[in-house]
Amino acid sequence: VFERVAIVGVGLIGGSLGLALRERRLARSIVGIGRNQATLDRALARHAIGEAFTEVGPGVAGADLVVLCTPISRILHDLEALAPVLAPGAVITDVGSTKSEIAAAGDRCYPDGRFVPGHPMAGSERSGVDAARAELFMEATWALTPTAQTDAEALSNVRSLAAAVGARVVRLTPAEHDEAVAVTSHLPHVLAYALAAVAGSRAGGSPHLYDLAAGSFTSGTRVAHSDPALWREIALSNRDALLSALRESADQTEAVIAALEARDGDALETAFRRGYEAVEKSPA
Amino acid sequence: VFERVAIVGVGLIGGSLGLALRERRLARSIVGIGRNQATLDRALARHAIGEAFTEVGPGVAGADLVVLCTPISRILHDLEALAPVLAPGAVITDVGSTKSEIAAAGDRCYPDGRFVPGHPMAGSERSGVDAARAELFMEATWALTPTAQTDAEALSNVRSLAAAVGARVVRLTPAEHDEAVAVTSHLPHVLAYALAAVAGSRAGGSPHLYDLAAGSFTSGTRVAHSDPALWREIALSNRDALLSALRESADQTEAVIAALEARDGDALETAFRRGYEAVEKSPA
Repeated sequence: VFERVAIVGVGLIGGSLGLALRERRLARSIVGIGRNQATLDRALARHAIGEAFTEVGPGVAGADLVVLCTPISRILHDLEALAPVLAPGAVITDVGSTKSEIAAAGDRCYPDGRFVPGHPMAGSERSGVDAARAELFMEATWALTPTAQTDAEALSNVRSLAAAVGARVVRLTPAEHDEAVAVTSHLPHVLAYALAAVAGSRAGGSPHLYDLAAGSFTSGTRVAHSDPALWREIALSNRDALLSALRESADQTEAVIAALEARDGDALETAFRRGYEAVEKSPA
Repeated sequence: VFERVAIVGVGLIGGSLGLALRERRLARSIVGIGRNQATLDRALARHAIGEAFTEVGPGVAGADLVVLCTPISRILHDLEALAPVLAPGAVITDVGSTKSEIAAAGDRCYPDGRFVPGHPMAGSERSGVDAARAELFMEATWALTPTAQTDAEALSNVRSLAAAVGARVVRLTPAEHDEAVAVTSHLPHVLAYALAAVAGSRAGGSPHLYDLAAGSFTSGTRVAHSDPALWREIALSNRDALLSALRESADQTEAVIAALEARDGDALETAFRRGYEAVEKSPA
């Protein structure tokens, strides 16, 4: 049980964390910090937080756990801003979608190792505190990516938090995390935006286009509803791993293009079968 | 009401059509034709069909409506094989995923215009007669793509059938259909196979890869479970339209790659926003 948990950024993840902490009585008090008073008011009304601040400095005062639940650029900013003001012994963690850049910044700002880089895999195409729910983390994977510098007790505290809200904790290095999510999260978002863009560019000249949208189109474009400004940050922050995943995906598509151009049915089936066999073997 | 409907190919679509016809009393008798006796037995046991034949010739004898529900190559084969044996006045239609090649074959084999090319958009990642259900076509789009040669009464009969099982009928040319489904069905399948293949090629070296699979990965690879041999046929049959859609999709991905290489955040956001705005405006 934490004395006072400060959640910076009360959206889907931050709000859900507040609800989960309160429901399971894991914190004596829960503070929400955000720049938008209306969002804070909704979080208060939903009892996702018990107190609200619009400034991080006063907001984290006296907190023994600080959780950064904002977009990546804000996490990087707050890591630096909060280092001088955190209470002695306080632990700080984050939920950012990429880990290498954030873990490096954490090492720089917290030489005592009290920063624990983390990433609960519990998004949704819905966002904001109105979509928050206490059960969001149940059965979800919560990646923790400590560095050589991370304090063992700080890591253990954050691990307990993740487990207490129902998540399965997976420990890996920041680089391993970023290479994995480049494929399992970032690439699917880029492909969804691309698919939606192709349809959009043709919808004008093809009046029945969306009438002929199959289930494959709906699933394939589901995450194209995600905020482009947020995904700009994520993509830039995971540039190298995402570039590698994108190039491999482009190679797969080029193989299909070449097979079609050559009317080579065997090559086409081989290309499709690579994906089919991978997905049939995967636990996902 | 039809006297005798012959369904060639009793899988998800053919089986569901049989169930829907029986439940709504739209046919006095329903005949199923397939090469696999075990499948026919399951269709009989589910009452999706009332009689079963393993040969198309005897199977369609006396039928006033024949519905071809097999893969494309088999549809093309049966269009030719059945032309000399159909009962006078019988109407023939199909449910194939592409329409230009099939409509051309139909025009060639049925100069009297009794073939009506069609495509109910009612797939599922599940297949086979065990997944069949009478409600499959409810609210689904059923595309009809008559040619200049198609007989008006034959078209009207098939339109009534589609409407009677709950589908919304959309009429368009075979080429319009194929250009639309290249984007709304075939491209998403190719992208799903590509995404799954990239993950598969990395899963060995990245032990936690699938632990970090987000919802975007699950939706993005859902249709990679589809049969590669079936999709080989569909892709080849819609070669030109699919090539065009694939090239446009590759251009979108290349734009993201170039923006990432240049660390150009604005270009990245512009690329993502194209997809975001298309999907926000789409009715899908």
